[in-house]
Amino acid sequence: MEVINLNDKYATFTDHWNPRLIGSLNGQAVKIAKVKGEFVWHDHKDEDELFHVIKGTLEIQFRDRTETIREGEMIIVPKGVEHKPVAKEEVWILLFEPMETKHTGDVIHELTQTKIDTI
Amino acid sequence: MEVINLNDKYATFTDHWNPRLIGSLNGQAVKIAKVKGEFVWHDHKDEDELFHVIKGTLEIQFRDRTETIREGEMIIVPKGVEHKPVAKEEVWILLFEPMETKHTGDVIHELTQTKIDTI
Repeated sequence: MEVINLNDKYATFTDHWNPRLIGSLNGQAVKIAKVKGEFVWHDHKDEDELFHVIKGTLEIQFRDRTETIREGEMIIVPKGVEHKPVAKEEVWILLFEPMETKHTGDVIHELTQTKIDTI
Repeated sequence: MEVINLNDKYATFTDHWNPRLIGSLNGQAVKIAKVKGEFVWHDHKDEDELFHVIKGTLEIQFRDRTETIREGEMIIVPKGVEHKPVAKEEVWILLFEPMETKHTGDVIHELTQTKIDTI
């Protein structure tokens, strides 16, 4: 059991769209990522996903609309809902989701990470 | 699906040690609370609990030591570990835990809330 300082964790990497695991509880993962640019359309068939914006402004495109999530805001994307995160400038996000969730869902894309580092 | 603004949610109540539900996913609850003063010693037999400090400085006493969690920091308290949160000044916390978790565990105390409001 240790105190997790988010700024310290974000300081350990600079790449985008590559989530790191910073903790887990009850089978759920706590991950952080820096994102910039456009991600890939995907969904998670069986898992809801929480995006909490720690720094910056994230847009998430859905098939019928776009939501803007600013610093201090969060959104829960239900399972099966296609979404595409977009960050015009760098955004720092905190994710809560099941340990088994893959960040591009079942989509294989050049951004797909096949493993996740624990920091 | 809606964007959840934490400051807006905190603005809806002023009482202490009374968590509100602001979202749920995968059987897990996302709760917020304002806390001030001393809480009660308790544990959660089957559930890990995440404390994320949004504003202020939280101390959590454990039987063998005390941890200080500042704004932008979090700690995951494993199931079965006795803990007692203490806030010298008001602290705003974000909690992530299973939906069934009771905030005082199996302890019945004057601070125990028997229901949780969704805001």
